[in-house]
Amino acid sequence: MLVPMNDIFQKIIAREIPAEIVYEDEHTLAFLDNSPNVQGHTLVIPKKHIENIFDADDETLGHVMHTVRLLAPAVRDAVRAKGVHINSNHGKSAGQIVFHLHFHIIPRHDRSEFEFWPQTPGVKSELEETGKKIREQLS
Amino acid sequence: MLVPMNDIFQKIIAREIPAEIVYEDEHTLAFLDNSPNVQGHTLVIPKKHIENIFDADDETLGHVMHTVRLLAPAVRDAVRAKGVHINSNHGKSAGQIVFHLHFHIIPRHDRSEFEFWPQTPGVKSELEETGKKIREQLS
Repeated sequence: MLVPMNDIFQKIIAREIPAEIVYEDEHTLAFLDNSPNVQGHTLVIPKKHIENIFDADDETLGHVMHTVRLLAPAVRDAVRAKGVHINSNHGKSAGQIVFHLHFHIIPRHDRSEFEFWPQTPGVKSELEETGKKIREQLS
Repeated sequence: MLVPMNDIFQKIIAREIPAEIVYEDEHTLAFLDNSPNVQGHTLVIPKKHIENIFDADDETLGHVMHTVRLLAPAVRDAVRAKGVHINSNHGKSAGQIVFHLHFHIIPRHDRSEFEFWPQTPGVKSELEETGKKIREQLS
Protein backbone atom coordinates (compact mmCIF):
# COMPACT_ATOMS: atom_id res chain seq x y z
CA MET A 1 0.00 0.00 0.00
CA LEU A 2 1.43 3.36 -1.00
CA VAL A 3 1.09 5.87 1.81
CA PRO A 4 2.20 9.50 1.59
CA MET A 5 4.91 10.60 4.03
CA ASN A 6 2.55 13.17 5.55
CA ASP A 7 -0.18 10.65 6.45
CA ILE A 8 0.20 10.92 10.22
CA PHE A 9 -2.92 8.78 10.75
CA GLN A 10 -1.28 5.77 9.08
CA LYS A 11 1.45 6.11 11.73
CA ILE A 12 -1.19 6.07 14.46
CA ILE A 13 -2.68 2.89 12.96
CA ALA A 14 0.81 1.34 12.92
CA ARG A 15 1.41 2.51 16.54
CA GLU A 16 4.46 4.43 15.34
CA ILE A 17 3.17 7.55 17.07
CA PRO A 18 0.92 7.62 20.14
CA ALA A 19 -2.76 8.55 20.26
CA GLU A 20 -5.58 8.13 22.76
CA ILE A 21 -7.29 5.25 20.97
CA VAL A 22 -10.90 4.64 22.01
CA TYR A 23 -11.98 1.96 19.51
CA GLU A 24 -10.46 -0.37 16.96
CA ASP A 25 -11.81 -3.06 14.67
CA GLU A 26 -10.63 -4.81 11.53
CA HIS A 27 -11.34 -1.85 9.25
CA THR A 28 -11.35 1.30 11.37
CA LEU A 29 -9.72 3.15 14.23
CA ALA A 30 -11.12 5.88 16.52
CA PHE A 31 -8.98 8.13 18.69
CA LEU A 32 -9.16 11.50 20.38
CA ASP A 33 -8.17 14.56 18.39
CA ASN A 34 -4.88 15.74 19.83
CA SER A 35 -6.10 19.35 19.56
CA PRO A 36 -9.75 19.09 20.54
CA ASN A 37 -12.43 21.64 19.91
CA VAL A 38 -14.08 20.40 23.10
CA GLN A 39 -13.50 17.51 25.50
CA GLY A 40 -14.36 14.25 23.74
CA HIS A 41 -13.55 15.44 20.19
CA THR A 42 -12.94 12.12 18.41
CA LEU A 43 -11.71 11.14 14.96
CA VAL A 44 -12.84 8.04 13.08
CA ILE A 45 -10.67 6.76 10.22
CA PRO A 46 -10.49 3.75 7.93
CA LYS A 47 -7.33 1.63 8.13
CA LYS A 48 -7.25 1.61 4.34
CA HIS A 49 -5.46 4.61 2.94
CA ILE A 50 -8.05 6.86 1.34
CA GLU A 51 -7.46 10.58 0.95
CA ASN A 52 -11.00 11.83 1.21
CA ILE A 53 -14.51 11.43 -0.21
CA PHE A 54 -13.23 11.94 -3.74
CA ASP A 55 -11.34 8.63 -3.80
CA ALA A 56 -13.51 6.73 -1.30
CA ASP A 57 -15.40 3.50 -2.02
CA ASP A 58 -18.78 2.49 -0.59
CA GLU A 59 -17.39 -0.46 1.37
CA THR A 60 -14.84 1.64 3.24
CA LEU A 61 -17.39 4.39 3.89
CA GLY A 62 -19.72 1.75 5.29
CA HIS A 63 -17.06 0.56 7.72
CA VAL A 64 -16.30 4.11 8.80
CA MET A 65 -19.95 5.03 9.33
CA HIS A 66 -20.52 1.84 11.32
CA THR A 67 -17.82 3.01 13.73
CA VAL A 68 -19.13 6.60 13.74
CA ARG A 69 -22.56 5.24 14.68
CA LEU A 70 -21.08 3.19 17.54
CA LEU A 71 -18.95 6.06 18.81
CA ALA A 72 -21.43 8.95 18.55
CA PRO A 73 -23.57 8.01 21.60
CA ALA A 74 -20.50 6.81 23.52
CA VAL A 75 -18.72 10.13 23.02
CA ARG A 76 -21.88 12.08 23.81
CA ASP A 77 -22.52 10.21 27.06
CA ALA A 78 -18.88 10.08 28.16
CA VAL A 79 -18.75 13.88 28.35
CA ARG A 80 -22.41 14.31 29.33
CA ALA A 81 -23.19 16.18 26.11
CA LYS A 82 -26.58 16.22 24.40
CA GLY A 83 -25.71 16.02 20.73
CA VAL A 84 -22.82 15.70 18.31
CA HIS A 85 -21.55 17.15 15.07
CA ILE A 86 -20.22 14.66 12.55
CA ASN A 87 -18.11 16.76 10.26
CA SER A 88 -15.42 16.26 7.70
CA ASN A 89 -13.26 18.29 5.35
CA HIS A 90 -12.37 17.06 1.89
CA GLY A 91 -9.62 18.86 0.00
CA LYS A 92 -7.04 21.44 1.02
CA SER A 93 -9.39 24.32 0.18
CA ALA A 94 -11.95 22.85 2.62
CA GLY A 95 -9.38 22.93 5.42
CA GLN A 96 -8.32 19.27 5.18
CA ILE A 97 -4.88 19.01 6.76
CA VAL A 98 -4.25 15.27 7.06
CA PHE A 99 -4.92 13.53 3.74
CA HIS A 100 -6.37 10.37 5.19
CA LEU A 101 -10.19 10.25 5.28
CA HIS A 102 -11.49 11.17 8.73
CA PHE A 103 -14.74 12.15 10.38
CA HIS A 104 -14.78 14.42 13.42
CA ILE A 105 -17.25 13.59 16.18
CA ILE A 106 -17.62 16.81 18.17
CA PRO A 107 -19.86 16.61 21.25
CA ARG A 108 -22.17 19.54 21.84
CA HIS A 109 -23.76 20.63 25.11
CA ASP A 110 -25.49 23.77 24.07
CA ARG A 111 -26.35 25.48 20.80
CA SER A 112 -24.63 28.65 21.96
CA GLU A 113 -21.21 26.98 22.15
CA PHE A 114 -20.37 28.09 18.64
CA GLU A 115 -22.04 28.93 15.40
CA PHE A 116 -21.56 26.88 12.27
CA TRP A 117 -21.82 27.80 8.59
CA PRO A 118 -24.07 30.88 8.24
CA GLN A 119 -27.04 30.37 5.91
CA THR A 120 -29.26 32.87 4.14
CA PRO A 121 -32.45 32.32 2.12
CA GLY A 122 -31.67 31.36 -1.46
CA VAL A 123 -33.01 32.97 -4.64
CA LYS A 124 -35.25 30.53 -6.55
CA SER A 125 -33.74 31.19 -9.99
CA GLU A 126 -30.22 30.73 -8.64
CA LEU A 127 -31.16 27.47 -6.91
CA GLU A 128 -32.69 26.20 -10.16
CA GLU A 129 -29.60 27.11 -12.14
CA THR A 130 -27.29 25.43 -9.62
CA GLY A 131 -29.48 22.35 -9.50
CA LYS A 132 -29.26 22.08 -13.28
CA LYS A 133 -25.46 22.27 -13.16
CA ILE A 134 -25.24 19.50 -10.54
CA ARG A 135 -27.60 17.24 -12.47
CA GLU A 136 -25.46 17.79 -15.57
CA GLN A 137 -22.38 16.67 -13.66
CA LEU A 138 -24.18 13.47 -12.69
CA SER A 139 -25.48 12.66 -16.17
CA MET B 1 -44.23 4.55 8.99
CA LEU B 2 -44.70 7.08 11.77
CA VAL B 3 -43.39 10.47 10.76
CA PRO B 4 -43.40 13.55 13.02
CA MET B 5 -45.43 16.51 11.80
CA ASN B 6 -42.32 18.68 11.72
CA ASP B 7 -40.37 16.39 9.37
CA ILE B 8 -40.31 18.74 6.42
CA PHE B 9 -37.94 16.45 4.53
CA GLN B 10 -40.53 13.68 4.44
CA LYS B 11 -42.78 16.16 2.65
CA ILE B 12 -40.04 16.84 0.12
CA ILE B 13 -39.69 13.08 -0.50
CA ALA B 14 -43.48 12.89 -0.98
CA ARG B 15 -43.37 15.92 -3.32
CA GLU B 16 -45.82 17.70 -1.00
CA ILE B 17 -43.52 20.71 -0.87
CA PRO B 18 -41.10 21.75 -3.61
CA ALA B 19 -37.32 21.48 -3.53
CA GLU B 20 -34.54 21.67 -6.10
CA ILE B 21 -33.89 17.93 -6.32
CA VAL B 22 -30.56 16.95 -7.84
CA TYR B 23 -30.54 13.18 -7.31
CA GLU B 24 -32.88 10.39 -6.29
CA ASP B 25 -32.61 6.65 -5.97
CA GLU B 26 -34.53 3.90 -4.19
CA HIS B 27 -33.19 4.78 -0.76
CA THR B 28 -32.06 8.41 -0.82
CA LEU B 29 -32.80 11.91 -2.06
CA ALA B 30 -30.47 14.88 -2.61
CA PHE B 31 -31.66 18.46 -3.00
CA LEU B 32 -30.35 21.99 -2.61
CA ASP B 33 -30.56 23.61 0.80
CA ASN B 34 -33.21 26.30 0.54
CA SER B 35 -31.01 28.62 2.62
CA PRO B 36 -27.54 27.85 1.33
CA ASN B 37 -24.28 28.74 2.98
CA VAL B 38 -22.79 28.99 -0.50
CA GLN B 39 -23.97 28.19 -4.01
CA GLY B 40 -24.28 24.42 -4.40
CA HIS B 41 -25.01 23.67 -0.71
CA THR B 42 -26.73 20.28 -0.97
CA LEU B 43 -28.51 18.00 1.49
CA VAL B 44 -28.51 14.20 1.28
CA ILE B 45 -31.19 12.29 3.17
CA PRO B 46 -32.47 8.72 3.46
CA LYS B 47 -36.07 8.10 2.45
CA LYS B 48 -36.49 6.03 5.59
CA HIS B 49 -37.46 8.18 8.57
CA ILE B 50 -34.46 8.32 10.88
CA GLU B 51 -33.97 11.21 13.28
CA ASN B 52 -30.20 11.30 13.42
CA ILE B 53 -27.09 9.18 14.06
CA PHE B 54 -28.49 8.03 17.41
CA ASP B 55 -31.25 5.94 15.83
CA ALA B 56 -29.53 5.17 12.51
CA ASP B 57 -28.74 1.69 11.21
CA ASP B 58 -25.71 0.67 9.16
CA GLU B 59 -27.71 -0.18 6.04
CA THR B 60 -29.35 3.25 5.85
CA LEU B 61 -26.07 5.02 6.58
CA GLY B 62 -24.51 3.00 3.77
CA HIS B 63 -27.16 4.16 1.33
CA VAL B 64 -26.75 7.78 2.43
CA MET B 65 -22.96 7.71 2.16
CA HIS B 66 -23.19 6.12 -1.29
CA THR B 67 -25.19 9.14 -2.43
CA VAL B 68 -22.89 11.58 -0.60
CA ARG B 69 -19.94 10.00 -2.45
CA LEU B 70 -21.71 10.39 -5.81
CA LEU B 71 -22.78 13.96 -5.12
CA ALA B 72 -19.59 15.36 -3.56
CA PRO B 73 -17.55 15.64 -6.79
CA ALA B 74 -20.66 16.64 -8.79
CA VAL B 75 -21.42 19.50 -6.40
CA ARG B 76 -17.76 20.55 -6.29
CA ASP B 77 -17.41 20.63 -10.08
CA ALA B 78 -20.83 22.21 -10.74
CA VAL B 79 -19.82 25.35 -8.84
CA ARG B 80 -16.11 25.13 -9.75
CA ALA B 81 -15.10 24.63 -6.12
CA LYS B 82 -12.01 22.74 -5.00
CA GLY B 83 -13.23 20.85 -1.94
CA VAL B 84 -16.29 20.14 0.17
CA HIS B 85 -17.35 19.88 3.77
CA ILE B 86 -19.58 16.94 4.64
CA ASN B 87 -21.17 17.98 7.89
CA SER B 88 -24.11 16.98 10.00
CA ASN B 89 -25.78 17.95 13.26
CA HIS B 90 -27.31 15.37 15.56
CA GLY B 91 -29.53 16.58 18.36
CA LYS B 92 -31.12 19.92 19.13
CA SER B 93 -28.13 21.04 21.19
CA ALA B 94 -25.92 20.44 18.14
CA GLY B 95 -28.08 22.77 16.07
CA GLN B 96 -30.20 20.09 14.38
CA ILE B 97 -33.40 21.75 13.22
CA VAL B 98 -35.08 19.14 11.00
CA PHE B 99 -35.26 15.79 12.77
CA HIS B 100 -34.67 13.67 9.71
CA LEU B 101 -31.08 12.49 9.23
CA HIS B 102 -29.25 14.70 6.73
CA PHE B 103 -25.73 15.42 5.60
CA HIS B 104 -24.76 18.84 4.27
CA ILE B 105 -22.40 18.96 1.30
CA ILE B 106 -20.93 22.46 1.36
CA PRO B 107 -18.57 23.31 -1.52
CA ARG B 108 -15.47 25.26 -0.64
CA HIS B 109 -13.34 27.40 -2.94
CA ASP B 110 -10.85 28.82 -0.52
CA ARG B 111 -9.81 28.14 3.06
CA SER B 112 -10.39 31.78 3.94
CA GLU B 113 -14.15 31.57 3.21
CA PHE B 114 -14.91 30.80 6.80
CA GLU B 115 -13.35 29.20 9.82
CA PHE B 116 -14.69 26.01 11.36
CA TRP B 117 -14.53 24.67 14.92
CA PRO B 118 -11.50 26.23 16.69
CA GLN B 119 -9.04 23.69 18.09
CA THR B 120 -6.35 24.05 20.75
CA PRO B 121 -3.65 21.57 21.83
CA GLY B 122 -5.02 19.10 24.36
CA VAL B 123 -3.54 18.26 27.78
CA LYS B 124 -2.30 14.65 27.87
CA SER B 125 -3.85 13.76 31.22
CA GLU B 126 -7.23 15.14 30.17
CA LEU B 127 -7.13 13.26 26.87
CA GLU B 128 -6.34 10.04 28.75
CA GLU B 129 -9.19 10.58 31.18
CA THR B 130 -11.67 11.31 28.39
CA GLY B 131 -10.46 8.31 26.41
CA LYS B 132 -11.10 6.10 29.45
CA LYS B 133 -14.65 7.44 29.78
CA ILE B 134 -15.44 6.75 26.11
CA ARG B 135 -14.04 3.22 26.27
CA GLU B 136 -16.17 2.61 29.37
CA GLN B 137 -19.28 3.67 27.43
CA LEU B 138 -18.42 1.16 24.72
CA SER B 139 -17.74 -1.75 27.06
